[in-house]
Amino acid sequence: MQRVAFTNDVPAALRQALMAGSYSRVAVLVDATTRQLVLPRLADVLAGAAVVVMPAGDTHKTIDTVCDVWRGLQQAGATRSSVLVNVGGGVVTDLGGFAAATYKRGLPFINVPTTLLGAVDAALGGKTGVNFGGLKNQVGAFAEAADVIVSACFFDTLPREQLLAGYAEMVKHALLSSDEALADVLQADVCALPAGDLLALLRQSVEVKRRIVASDPLERGPRKALNLGHTVGHALESLMLERGRPVAHGTAVAWGLVAELVLSHLALQFPSAQLHRLAAFVRERYAAPAIGCDDYAALLESMHRDKKSQAGEINCTLLRACGQPEVDCAVADDDMRTALDIFRDLMGV
Amino acid sequence: MQRVAFTNDVPAALRQALMAGSYSRVAVLVDATTRQLVLPRLADVLAGAAVVVMPAGDTHKTIDTVCDVWRGLQQAGATRSSVLVNVGGGVVTDLGGFAAATYKRGLPFINVPTTLLGAVDAALGGKTGVNFGGLKNQVGAFAEAADVIVSACFFDTLPREQLLAGYAEMVKHALLSSDEALADVLQADVCALPAGDLLALLRQSVEVKRRIVASDPLERGPRKALNLGHTVGHALESLMLERGRPVAHGTAVAWGLVAELVLSHLALQFPSAQLHRLAAFVRERYAAPAIGCDDYAALLESMHRDKKSQAGEINCTLLRACGQPEVDCAVADDDMRTALDIFRDLMGV
Repeated sequence: MQRVAFTNDVPAALRQALMAGSYSRVAVLVDATTRQLVLPRLADVLAGAAVVVMPAGDTHKTIDTVCDVWRGLQQAGATRSSVLVNVGGGVVTDLGGFAAATYKRGLPFINVPTTLLGAVDAALGGKTGVNFGGLKNQVGAFAEAADVIVSACFFDTLPREQLLAGYAEMVKHALLSSDEALADVLQADVCALPAGDLLALLRQSVEVKRRIVASDPLERGPRKALNLGHTVGHALESLMLERGRPVAHGTAVAWGLVAELVLSHLALQFPSAQLHRLAAFVRERYAAPAIGCDDYAALLESMHRDKKSQAGEINCTLLRACGQPEVDCAVADDDMRTALDIFRDLMGV
Repeated sequence: MQRVAFTNDVPAALRQALMAGSYSRVAVLVDATTRQLVLPRLADVLAGAAVVVMPAGDTHKTIDTVCDVWRGLQQAGATRSSVLVNVGGGVVTDLGGFAAATYKRGLPFINVPTTLLGAVDAALGGKTGVNFGGLKNQVGAFAEAADVIVSACFFDTLPREQLLAGYAEMVKHALLSSDEALADVLQADVCALPAGDLLALLRQSVEVKRRIVASDPLERGPRKALNLGHTVGHALESLMLERGRPVAHGTAVAWGLVAELVLSHLALQFPSAQLHRLAAFVRERYAAPAIGCDDYAALLESMHRDKKSQAGEINCTLLRACGQPEVDCAVADDDMRTALDIFRDLMGV
């Protein structure tokens, strides 16, 4: 059973997690950014650990980097009774989790998410993996971290765009929860909240995800609710990456949420007032999606290749209302094009 | 729950497995050898399947080859409701199983082992993986094939050395079973048995493994019994590979069984009459292990790096008697050197 600590005293929580596991050796995975900004703050508790450093950024979320981590674990003499501590954002915890899950068929790992997106989404739930063949997270494994230490204390090092990117997943969790939760997240200003208040809001949001994951760890059914915003979001993210203008995952998810709520409104009568409120929130805070009709073919092709899609149909999670998801909705190509038209209109592009 | 069919009518069994899974697409992994010798015999039932071909041999059991399989699955448009059919020996089923288990975080796969070693060992039990950094099976996952089709009908294409290599695992299963089972396998001539008789013997042997795996799928305890012969066997296999004189896995296991029964005799009073009977069997049928005292350092280092070893101690499964394994025995370096001396003596090298 996965242990999750919510605390802004990360060194103490990490010390406790390491003691609880009685690991024979400790290895740490950081990227160039967290090595500089976060590792020094954990120096005491990680003294003596072997440090593996990967380059920062989604373009390095590849099987080649996984090979580097495996080599680092070999050089550190890691065995199945060792542990890998992943200190970083979603790229580090996704990639490090996959490297650990497959090293000697499974090394325990501890996630210390250092970004809001990592804390609210990537570090929990057991989805690990890397990009492959131009597609996001095409290769991976279901493997839960032994411990996750959720904190808001490293967010002071994050640029505004990254905070907002993480916040998009909190908006998603609110949509999957209730009208009240949605109102709460749409009115808070994530960039101005003190770490204590943000940790409290974060905890509520993480609990929504934990509840859903616990009901369906291998994503056979109910867990697919968490894909809300991600079919369109991933396609937009892949497109922007191919165009050489990568956007944060969370930005793409924020766009994807608007587009899929358009679909939800058309197919399941999701209330239009809430759709417009969300669209206004996303338009004001996030970058504008630079796409036109000429991009639809590439976007639809990408959605068809998505892990969730089957037998020629685009698969989305849609909402009847806040807290009422419908998973495995098949979306016809024409309906998707219509939704993308309305989405661009709502986003003012 | 994994379905295992024991039959020499493979096309019929494969057809049934594919129908039972209602897969949206079928991809097949073969190596250069099974493409030529086996695939034509399954042409009818696999008509329309996308074929991915890998080079034959353990030197290609690498993450690069896994990347080729992932690419092949992408090109075939495989989704989570597709299936990968692995047709080949242990390299193909280990590697194909790992590629499937990690593609989109888990594609179902069917194993059609075409070698005796594959049928008796690799294709069942959920251990998948590839070699990495010069060590065997350092990277992998626990993932069970949806179906395994065990047959003896392809063995007519196997050279004698490969048949014997597979037979070493049957000897191991007999050692883990009973005195009677050991007597049966030591007196049968695997190279002369008709396919029907061999299938019956194979079924008994596979059932020993299934019983042990079912009691402990993730290898926390009792399953480690199946590691009998493998701590020393893997080290010998790695050494011969490094020396550019690779031997069949089963040959290395046959040697490993003798060496670990020497240890079993020294530490747990395993009966010396049976040790000598086994040693004579291995000496007569298998290649001689070309190692000397100068190789002990490299062998011990390799055993210390073994997945099973922890915190500076070599870990072996030993036997008190046939059917009475003791897992997680720590072996001191000096005792291992003594056992290797006696082993070389018994093998006449």
